[in-house]
Amino acid sequence: MEADGKMAKVRGAFFLSDRTGITSETLGNMLLTQFAGVQFDRVTIPFINSLSKARDTVARIDAYRERHGEPPLIFSTAVDDEIRAILATADGVFMDFFESFIARLEDTLGVRASHSVGLAHGANPSTYHRRIEAVNFALAHDDGARMDHYAEADLILLAPSRCGKTPTCLYLALQHGLRAANLPLTEEILEAERLPEALTRFRSKLFGLTIDAERLAQIRSERLPNSRYASREQCARELRLAQGIYRRLGAPSLDTTHVSVEEIAAHIIHQMGLKSILR
Amino acid sequence: MEADGKMAKVRGAFFLSDRTGITSETLGNMLLTQFAGVQFDRVTIPFINSLSKARDTVARIDAYRERHGEPPLIFSTAVDDEIRAILATADGVFMDFFESFIARLEDTLGVRASHSVGLAHGANPSTYHRRIEAVNFALAHDDGARMDHYAEADLILLAPSRCGKTPTCLYLALQHGLRAANLPLTEEILEAERLPEALTRFRSKLFGLTIDAERLAQIRSERLPNSRYASREQCARELRLAQGIYRRLGAPSLDTTHVSVEEIAAHIIHQMGLKSILR
Repeated sequence: MEADGKMAKVRGAFFLSDRTGITSETLGNMLLTQFAGVQFDRVTIPFINSLSKARDTVARIDAYRERHGEPPLIFSTAVDDEIRAILATADGVFMDFFESFIARLEDTLGVRASHSVGLAHGANPSTYHRRIEAVNFALAHDDGARMDHYAEADLILLAPSRCGKTPTCLYLALQHGLRAANLPLTEEILEAERLPEALTRFRSKLFGLTIDAERLAQIRSERLPNSRYASREQCARELRLAQGIYRRLGAPSLDTTHVSVEEIAAHIIHQMGLKSILR
Repeated sequence: MEADGKMAKVRGAFFLSDRTGITSETLGNMLLTQFAGVQFDRVTIPFINSLSKARDTVARIDAYRERHGEPPLIFSTAVDDEIRAILATADGVFMDFFESFIARLEDTLGVRASHSVGLAHGANPSTYHRRIEAVNFALAHDDGARMDHYAEADLILLAPSRCGKTPTCLYLALQHGLRAANLPLTEEILEAERLPEALTRFRSKLFGLTIDAERLAQIRSERLPNSRYASREQCARELRLAQGIYRRLGAPSLDTTHVSVEEIAAHIIHQMGLKSILR
């Protein structure tokens, strides 16, 4: 019971999968974010790849239902017909991401689907290799560590300290197999209001990040509290100078304040016309 | 035309989204992997967040249809009613991941969905913070660089060189906000057939990776061709000793040969009962 005497709405949401659960969680969560007023109790059950695991899952959901009263939501991406048939008997609202579309696809393509677990996330050796190589590239070229292989980079991220360069580069490497270097816009570069000479020939690979000054000050304060580095004024000044540099270079840029790493990566790929290995 | 005179089946597949396209691609690809005999020409169109972009998308799909003959498959996660109405007019087989489930959810929850673009991928500042912190932790504790903060680690990955420790730790950090350290099983550790003393009290955090010896030799050969390090025998020996260590420690382990980074991460989280920030 909450202080105002109303029951908080909490609804169980199960994400079921015969593999990792990633797809089931991703689509399920997209749908659930549409109901801002409802609180969800999320449970992911991955690797349901046998009839006995399917039965255990049903027992777990039924027990949940008994404890909580309202029928939980169930999102499933399981593909095996027998496993799906068992899961569908659970005491909840069953949403089958596989069954809802597969019949229509079979009709359209004139081919029967395999209905067996496939390599959904592509552990394809050549893709794996590209991703690992890209991670090594990102690590070697993090934070301006070296500037000698920019010709091989797919992109070069620019930003003042703590705007999210490193996670973005690592995500671009791991998820999309892209070689992303990054260069911090240091005091020296910002004062000069231009980039080191060596970078000018890679102008088309440059992408800038910005962030809200208040947020940047907060992030920096966790690292160096009460420093000039973390002051609101210093952050605002660096961001203003950085934006001037992006503008003069004609480099696209993005404000990362309210954007997740996945989304920053997607924006960069889209704006720069890069090719993810996923596509 | 192929050599045997049959036309290769290539079907257009469009992944449409008002945001990053990640959900649309993920679920769409899961469905397409069910049709191993069909080749797909995949196009992702993200950030369709205005009526004019929706109209441009329809024009692009219609042009594709005209060039290729057969109606392309269209997977959409767009949530805005007007934008969806436009996209649905495209000349293809329209699969609406949003509309197919949202009405049922509205009925069940007794609440109307917002039908507007939400924070699907959670650019929640506290989550962002945990992910960045976890990335910093992974970078600081990569490859046995330091062993002084293992008490704060959510897990410690063990494996011989080049079995995928670093990408796995980075993925666990970026995607799941988990603090993952990793320790290479060096010749010294493998010879001793046991871990450094400092690690014994973190036994419950240990997880081992293995890989097929042939595959490991191939990966190492790209780095140091014709070396003892990259020889089939040396790889097989290291992997055998590593497995002995995992067994004696009672540490769970996973063969990564045919498994993507996402899947390795999902297995580890599942087997070790860790809590991803996504859940």
